[in-house]
Amino acid sequence: MEICFANRRVLITGGLGFIGSNLAHRLVGLGAEVVLVDSLVPEYGGNLFNVEGIQNRVRINISDVRDEHSIAYLVQGQDYLFNLAGQTSHMDSMADPFADLEINCRAQLSILEACRKHNPGIKIVFASTRQLYGKPDRLPVDEAHLLRPVDVNGINKMAGEWYHILYNNVYGIRACALRLTNTYGPRMRIKDARQTFLGVWLRLIAQGKPFEVWGGEQLRDFTYVDDAVDALLLAALRDEANGEVFNLGGLSVLSLTALADLLLEVAGAGEYAVHEFPADRKRIDIGDYYADDRRIKERLGWEPKVAEREGLTRTLAYYQTHLKSYL
Amino acid sequence: MEICFANRRVLITGGLGFIGSNLAHRLVGLGAEVVLVDSLVPEYGGNLFNVEGIQNRVRINISDVRDEHSIAYLVQGQDYLFNLAGQTSHMDSMADPFADLEINCRAQLSILEACRKHNPGIKIVFASTRQLYGKPDRLPVDEAHLLRPVDVNGINKMAGEWYHILYNNVYGIRACALRLTNTYGPRMRIKDARQTFLGVWLRLIAQGKPFEVWGGEQLRDFTYVDDAVDALLLAALRDEANGEVFNLGGLSVLSLTALADLLLEVAGAGEYAVHEFPADRKRIDIGDYYADDRRIKERLGWEPKVAEREGLTRTLAYYQTHLKSYL
Repeated sequence: MEICFANRRVLITGGLGFIGSNLAHRLVGLGAEVVLVDSLVPEYGGNLFNVEGIQNRVRINISDVRDEHSIAYLVQGQDYLFNLAGQTSHMDSMADPFADLEINCRAQLSILEACRKHNPGIKIVFASTRQLYGKPDRLPVDEAHLLRPVDVNGINKMAGEWYHILYNNVYGIRACALRLTNTYGPRMRIKDARQTFLGVWLRLIAQGKPFEVWGGEQLRDFTYVDDAVDALLLAALRDEANGEVFNLGGLSVLSLTALADLLLEVAGAGEYAVHEFPADRKRIDIGDYYADDRRIKERLGWEPKVAEREGLTRTLAYYQTHLKSYL
Repeated sequence: MEICFANRRVLITGGLGFIGSNLAHRLVGLGAEVVLVDSLVPEYGGNLFNVEGIQNRVRINISDVRDEHSIAYLVQGQDYLFNLAGQTSHMDSMADPFADLEINCRAQLSILEACRKHNPGIKIVFASTRQLYGKPDRLPVDEAHLLRPVDVNGINKMAGEWYHILYNNVYGIRACALRLTNTYGPRMRIKDARQTFLGVWLRLIAQGKPFEVWGGEQLRDFTYVDDAVDALLLAALRDEANGEVFNLGGLSVLSLTALADLLLEVAGAGEYAVHEFPADRKRIDIGDYYADDRRIKERLGWEPKVAEREGLTRTLAYYQTHLKSYL
């Protein structure tokens, strides 16, 4: 993969966020010329500490994907766009549906329009989400499953994903989408549950405090961020991906309590309490979810490599060392 | 049905348009108090002549669904909202995707937010479209078919539809959506193909000119507007509809040339030429489409009653009389 990205120009929206910054670390290692776009909106995932160690080897451009002028400039001359900027919080999308629409829907359209006008030869990989499926009819969930999003965020992400597929199909701007499941690892947001509940668990464990598990029996799958980065890079390189959507999954399927137990085991200490699912979330509870990720395995040769025990160990070690940069 | 709508307060967005105005005529006959909202944007379907004969029995409010202030006022005190305003043109959605987004996506969210804040007891019926399905995998297309829209319009309508379902499910604002297929009848736009190609055919026949059929072998189904109005009223009245989407279909499945032949037969004169599908539309050609509409038949008891021959006869007679009001 080294030869593929050496000296290639790469733009990452949401580049100071969790996945974007991990991708940037990898791409810098592969010799790419990386530009990170991030708004650093405090409620979102951007954190300057995420590029600690590579800050002089990337170009950081603070701007918001809603700012169509800066984006129209920044896409020019790029070989790849990893389009990861997004509003990810369910709660925020319900409290302010218009902000979610502007970021996850309108800004995606303006990014694509910018590429169509200024750089139609770019290749785009869009970070989509399992949220699009809503409550599964069947498990594991493959890409042929109906999309029935249960929050504003899921609806807007669905539109954002489809704009990418459309611009690929109609205008030949090569684009594809990965539907991420729970992704975790170093550099994730842990201040609150805006990225995933697991962020909060990790923070509390690192702080020596008990954490809460809501429900507990729900089954989920988890992708370690390095595996997600592998998938993003493969999707960028492979033309078979163009116009396609791919689920990412994990190595195992775990109940939330099984995950919590594993986290305690890895930490060697700590405790958690199981609570009833809050009423206001019950209406949009999706029950169990785990992905059928055979499509990306078969077509792009991706596979997750980092098991949950190893992933949690690395992640916890990261936050035990760098906790103060994430509070 | 008379007793159900007598003295009920009904708001229709897109009320001066094709379907909205036909619905208004029916509702006035049923004794409802009807308010029509329409922007009268010249490229869209609104036409004041459409309320000829009932203009003193409805209240007409010229405003755009993008104007959240007027909408927030107008939804108050209404029992039913038939939410029919939309940008319907494929071509316009590709030429100006942001205008399409503002109307079909953002305005829908603001209409729902207005209802949530000011009138959560309202019942909403949303006019969605078969465009959401894109190119069918199988025929006839039922509601379990994946949504894979092939233009910006379809993507934004998909989001708009799902906001309605979400607000039903999460906030209890009763809403449902009808996925309309080709709808035709008196009061449709015939100036151009922005509503359907059939509008242009009808105009040219009424003007004694030949018309063009693109492709010709594609199969389609057609709903006469009175049947669509029946479905809208049933969906409004029946609580089983809440949170659901329903396809509408027609009485027959016809190729475009079969429809063209039928139109000539009904007109007793005229001619048409078959042309190759233009290259720029070929990329988004969906091939054959016809709906499986058993869900609405079984759950709401709807059925189309007006066959194509009868529907075309009535429609052509309307335009032969009123042509100048539609040019």
